[in-house]
Order: sequence, then C-alpha cells, then structure tokens
Amino acid sequence: MITQESADIFEKKKSILLTNVNDGTGMVDIFIDASETITDIGHEIRKRHRGEAEYIIEGDGALVLPGLSNTHTHAAMSLLRGYADDMILQDWLSQKIWPLEAHLTGEDVYWGTKLACLEMIRTGTTAFNDMYFFMEDAARAVDEAGIRALLCYGFIDLGDAAKREHECRATEALAAHIRKLANPRIHAATGPHAPYTVSPEGLKWCAEFSREQDIPLHIHLSETEKEVNDCVAQHKKRPAALLDECGVLGPKTIAAHGCWLDDAECALLGKRGVSVSHNPASNMKLATHRALPYRELVHAGANVCLGTDGCASNNNLDLFEEMKIAALLQKFFWNDPTILAAPAALAMATTNGAKALGFGAGTLTAGAPADLILVSNRIPCNTPLHNAASNLVYACSGAAVETTICAGRVLMLEHEIPGEAEILAGASQAAAQLVKRAQSTA
Amino acid sequence: MITQESADIFEKKKSILLTNVNDGTGMVDIFIDASETITDIGHEIRKRHRGEAEYIIEGDGALVLPGLSNTHTHAAMSLLRGYADDMILQDWLSQKIWPLEAHLTGEDVYWGTKLACLEMIRTGTTAFNDMYFFMEDAARAVDEAGIRALLCYGFIDLGDAAKREHECRATEALAAHIRKLANPRIHAATGPHAPYTVSPEGLKWCAEFSREQDIPLHIHLSETEKEVNDCVAQHKKRPAALLDECGVLGPKTIAAHGCWLDDAECALLGKRGVSVSHNPASNMKLATHRALPYRELVHAGANVCLGTDGCASNNNLDLFEEMKIAALLQKFFWNDPTILAAPAALAMATTNGAKALGFGAGTLTAGAPADLILVSNRIPCNTPLHNAASNLVYACSGAAVETTICAGRVLMLEHEIPGEAEILAGASQAAAQLVKRAQSTA
Repeated sequence: MITQESADIFEKKKSILLTNVNDGTGMVDIFIDASETITDIGHEIRKRHRGEAEYIIEGDGALVLPGLSNTHTHAAMSLLRGYADDMILQDWLSQKIWPLEAHLTGEDVYWGTKLACLEMIRTGTTAFNDMYFFMEDAARAVDEAGIRALLCYGFIDLGDAAKREHECRATEALAAHIRKLANPRIHAATGPHAPYTVSPEGLKWCAEFSREQDIPLHIHLSETEKEVNDCVAQHKKRPAALLDECGVLGPKTIAAHGCWLDDAECALLGKRGVSVSHNPASNMKLATHRALPYRELVHAGANVCLGTDGCASNNNLDLFEEMKIAALLQKFFWNDPTILAAPAALAMATTNGAKALGFGAGTLTAGAPADLILVSNRIPCNTPLHNAASNLVYACSGAAVETTICAGRVLMLEHEIPGEAEILAGASQAAAQLVKRAQSTA
Repeated sequence: MITQESADIFEKKKSILLTNVNDGTGMVDIFIDASETITDIGHEIRKRHRGEAEYIIEGDGALVLPGLSNTHTHAAMSLLRGYADDMILQDWLSQKIWPLEAHLTGEDVYWGTKLACLEMIRTGTTAFNDMYFFMEDAARAVDEAGIRALLCYGFIDLGDAAKREHECRATEALAAHIRKLANPRIHAATGPHAPYTVSPEGLKWCAEFSREQDIPLHIHLSETEKEVNDCVAQHKKRPAALLDECGVLGPKTIAAHGCWLDDAECALLGKRGVSVSHNPASNMKLATHRALPYRELVHAGANVCLGTDGCASNNNLDLFEEMKIAALLQKFFWNDPTILAAPAALAMATTNGAKALGFGAGTLTAGAPADLILVSNRIPCNTPLHNAASNLVYACSGAAVETTICAGRVLMLEHEIPGEAEILAGASQAAAQLVKRAQSTA
C-alpha cells in the first residue's frame, strides 16, 4: 500500500517511509530521505518522519533484508539460458558456448545485462560482480536498471604477448570509461580470467593495475580438478600459490568457485583476506565433484560469499535458490547437517557479499546504503514463521521478494517493475538473432 | 484473460477452452468438458469447441504441462517448516520433531495439509503421496483443496505385537474411511514406515493387506547408511532383500529415498517394477552423503520419480526446485554432467510420478486426466526460450506457475487461489498453538 499515486515512485529518488517491516528482531520502520542511504531505522520511528516522507510503503509485516550481493556472474549470458545443458564441460564450451559467444555484439551484451538486472531486481539482488566482454554496454544496462555492479573485462592472454597487450589496453579502457561515468553504483575491477587462461605476466600486470587504480580484482580459481592438476604440472605449485606469487591475492580480490582448494590454499586465502565466491548450483551442474571447503576457508579468515555464475551454467540468477543450494551442498558433501546453518547462508548473500563488492555495509543500519528488499510474509514459504532466517534460506525462492530498493530508489514495488515487457522482448529478440547469426556461419 | 466473469470459475467444474498454450512442440488448444479428463487437444482446435466452452482461458503462449506428482511427502509437516534445522538427524528428531509431533491433533493435520495443498497448487503439483497421522483429517483437507492424494497412515510397530495390532487396525480404518468417501481424487495406501521401524511380521501384514485391497504401498527405504548397516547386522541382509522376503516389493510399491541402495538392490527393485521416489533436497539437508543411484535404477527398469519429503526437512513442496536439485545432485555426486538431463527430470515429475501414484497418465492427451498447469512465458526464467524443458528444470521455480487445473477444475487462475488468506491464517494459528502446547509441557 502506498499513500500517493505510484506512477512516479519509480521515476527518481524520493524520500520513502517503510512502516511495519520485520527485520528478524521485530517490527521496525525505515526512513530513507532523498539521499542514497538509510536515514533512520527503528521501532515506530514513523512518527518522526511521516511529515517528510513523499511516499509511505506500508510493509504490513513483510520481512526486510539488505539487498543481496551476487559476487560472481556473467550477466549477459542470460541470453544463453537453456541454449545448451547436460554436456561435458569441454564439449559444452567448445561446441556450444564459445561458437555462440564469437558472434556476440555490444548490443547483445546490453540486452543480456538488461535481462539479468531485471531478474536480479525481481529476486532481491541489488549488487553484482560481473566478468564479460563489451562491458561499456553492460555499464549502460546497469546504469538504466538502477542496481549496482562491479564490472570487469575478462582478461585472457593464453600466454601470448600480443594478446596480453590487447587485454591490458582493454582493461585500462574499461577502467577509464567507468571513471568517466562517475556513477556511484558502477565500479570497475580488473578481471584476469583464471590461472589457466592468463600467463603469470598477465596476472602480475592485473595485480599491479588493481593496486594502482585501487580497484578490486575478480578471478576464477580452482573450479575443476583438471585445472589444478594442470597448474601443478606446469608451474610446480597449486593455483593459489601461483596467484600469490603474482601478487594477485589481497582483501580486494574476489576468487570464484574454489571447489578444489586444499587446506594450505585455504589458509593462504584467509591470510590475504581474499573474498571467495561459492557458486554451488553451477558447480553441481557442471559436475565439479568437490564442494568448496567452506569451513576451512571461514576458519582461515577468508570472506566467503555467494555467486550464481552465468545463466548458461545455473540457469538463473536467484540468490535465494543459491543460498539454499549452498547450505544443502555443504551439508551433503562434507557429511554434516550442521555446516552452513541458515543465518550463515544469509550472511554470505548480504554482509559478506557487500564486503566483497565494496559498495557498503550490507546491513540495515542508519548510514548504510539504502539497498533493501521486502519479502512477503503472506505466502506459503513464510507460513508459519517459526524462524525467518530458515524460511528465507530453505523455503523461499526469489519470487517471494515483493519490493526492491537500491540506492534509495524503488526499482520494484509489489512485484511491479516498470518497462519489464520491453526488456523481455528486447532480450528475446537479441537471443534469437544471436543464434541465427551463429547458425548461418556454422 | 478469460471471457466471462471469473468469480465462479473456481466454484465447480466448467467446460474450459485453453487457447494458445505451448506444449513444447508448439502452440495448441486444449478443451476440457465438464468431465474430469482432457476432451481434445491440438493445433487450433478452438474452432471446434468455442461454442461449447463456458470459459476460455487465453494462454497467450504460456507453457502447458501435466500437473506434477509429488511421490513422497508428509504434507501436514508444513506446520513445522523452519521449526528446527541444521541439526544432526537423531538430535533433530528426538529433541525437536518428535516432541512437537506428540502434541499434534487431527485439527493440526487438517490445517497443515490445507497449507501444503495450497503450496502445491501454487507450485504446480496436482497429486501427492502422503504418509502421516490423523489421515482422515488430511483427507478432508485434500477433498476441499481439489487436488489428488494417495494417503497412508504411517505404520510403526517397533517389533511390538500389541503396537502392531493397533497399527493394523489404524491402517484398515483409513482404507475403509477412504473407500467410503468415494472421492476419485483420494486413494488409500498402506504405509509401513520403514524396514527399521516395522517388524517383518508388520511388513508382511502390510504387503498382504495391500494385495487384498489392491492399493499401493508407501515405505521409506535406505535413506541413511546407518539404517542399512543396522539392517545387515540384525537381519543378515540388506533392506531391499528384507522387503522382498516380506512380499513388500511390487509395481504398486513406492519406496522413498533409496540413497544407499547397492547394485543388487537396484536390480531387484527394477525386476519387481517398484517406483523409487528421489528426494534430493531432503537428502542433502540431512546429509545422507550418498545420492540415489539413479542410473542403475533406470537401467534395471525401476520407475524413478520425485518427492519433496516433508517441510521439516526440505523446507518447501516446490517440485520445480526439486527437479533442479535432482538433476544437479546426480551430476555432482556421480561426477557426470550428462546424467539426468532436463527432459528426464521433467519426466520424473510428470509421467513417472503419475505412474507411481496411479491417478492417470501424466501426459497431455485426449482421455488423460484434466490435470494441467500453465507456466508463464513472460518472465525472466523463460526468457529467452531456447529450450522449454531446460528453462522449466533449471531456471524456473514453482512461482512461474500461473494457472493450475486438477480433475477439470480450476484451482488457481493467474496466480489467484480463492480462500488463500484464510488458509495461511488458519495454518499459522495452528502452528503457533502447537508450539505453545509443546512448550508448556516441556
């Protein structure tokens, strides 16, 4: 329920009062002025702010959470959702994914990222960590969508010096482009793809560039057993040690997957304060056969967060589903039903994810970014409500999210997102034409 | 879109014409007359039936599927959703679940089953296989909800002859009660709980009673390694062999879990034509540490279908989520991304599930039960639509279901279910009072 005409609540930042929302401890009100942060939060603070608020959203007992952070994805791969599944990783990449990606244009990445942002807004994600190509077009989509993103160009040199030069220039260009945008919701990162696709020289350059620019570094690490074995054969050390030698590991590093990390690598990542992004759905679908050593990483002091990976290998961007699959996979693989309890899974998607991405606290406190979501309490997955954290992690999907606010702006209100039909149509058309182009040259 | 006032479309069976629905091969129309079966299905058959139809539901490209079959659950445990999680199985049962269940009343089971049916209708399930207590009250809830259920009383004798007598009488009483209801949507089954909770004498009695009444038999089988080891220690044989010796295994048997079945047991279950219900979310959450040997069972000729288990150990009844987790777990555990491809996962929840429950074909063909669901095509999880089966299994959750029809009656139309608020309120209240009763005697 909103007190005024809702037509323009989506248009720009408004001062908003949320009343009667359940933050897990009880009913609170939240006031967001025209800034991008939470101005005030507490029990019945509505009395103080009712006069100032341009809009009042009556929460009516809805659960309120910080917006979720997706710490590893390739957003524009939403165009490839369902294009190829149930295949051996190498066949899947070489026969299906790469041939299609060879035909990608900037316009495709724009539409794919638009679709991805739409899905994230719908399922409660307000910030994501993206690695792909044509990232200027991705930035355009993120700017329009109203959520936050850390964008990097996927740097791949395959040990070739000329390629490396090209990738360095592309990385610099993206960082310069994003600096020029001066949009506080869009940050640049360096994106060396993985230890097996980037030479030590390339890794060192990326680490140095990240330090120089003071920007995060996003990399794939130890997803499959094969890449670990290949690394040991080639470099006489395991991947994390190789990355450390190249200066890649630090508190601004986000390493995705980590399925095959051994104890010493966990200790090293913890010591360096690395964020490790667990991507359980993708890992299971592609049969990595080992789960992230969650407990060892946490024990070592690493910041363990959550990612969906791209839609070609998941096939959605729903972090609620990912929280559940993470908690389930950890219990099943490590043979202990007490690992990764519901509150810890929630923390992975909120505080830990926010810490990894660097946009803000990932908490509901005055001064924190006004990135928050309302989850319906009048649906089966939240009935009964013995334990909010349990229901959010184990019973709800992202479809339970009814309202999404990012940087103080309402992006979805009671399941309505303006312009949704146009985005779905544009992305469908881009995907169909991409497949057509690929088939015409196949 | 519907052509007439929708107020009474829910009230009783109407003749319904669905136009422009996508059955995976292309756009079809479906006509359901006032009977409980599909009368006609095909391309543009609307011309033949437009005059007869009391209601026209314009599918507008929505995907159409047979209603899903949940082949193992304890529906009323929806009241325990989120009551206790992340615990060791034995502690969880003895400290949390059993003490609460000791206070269950028939009215609780009624409300819990109402809530479960609501959630199933919302997520596209039109038939389920239920084992619990106070099953006359469960039958009342199923009758009102409009879906189908195979109901059994959970028979547990723990080797005690007096208990066994009681359980036999309870089993007979439920079968007689359900026969008297004469509701074609509600069937009785025999429910020997498991080989470790029912004596061989009890198992034999259940097998004999099932044969005599010509009704299915529903049992837990080889969920944990411990129960298998205990069985071998006590009976000098593995659980499936024990069941076979007691006459329990046959084409009307539905055995749930099966995580620890060995090759010989798979062969035996296949030979007997048993339906095996895979419950991957529950198995992962409770850390069974081994996944159903899906490929061996299929190879042996068993009918492998899908179940959610109860809400205390899942914690929802969403078979879309279960299809995804099944496909993911099989790939991950058996180390092969090609196992349980999307079409096979869909078959588990449709044709295989329907075969197990015995209500009908689980297909969209003239003469099949008019149990069908429409899944929205204008949402992110179905955009783009390269492959409907892939999107349904890997991208969508049950929230993508917009319309549910069972036995020719519309139970949900464009996400609206009549009486939903009352069911949520009634179930919430029953759950709260149940916990209060348990705490007051703790």
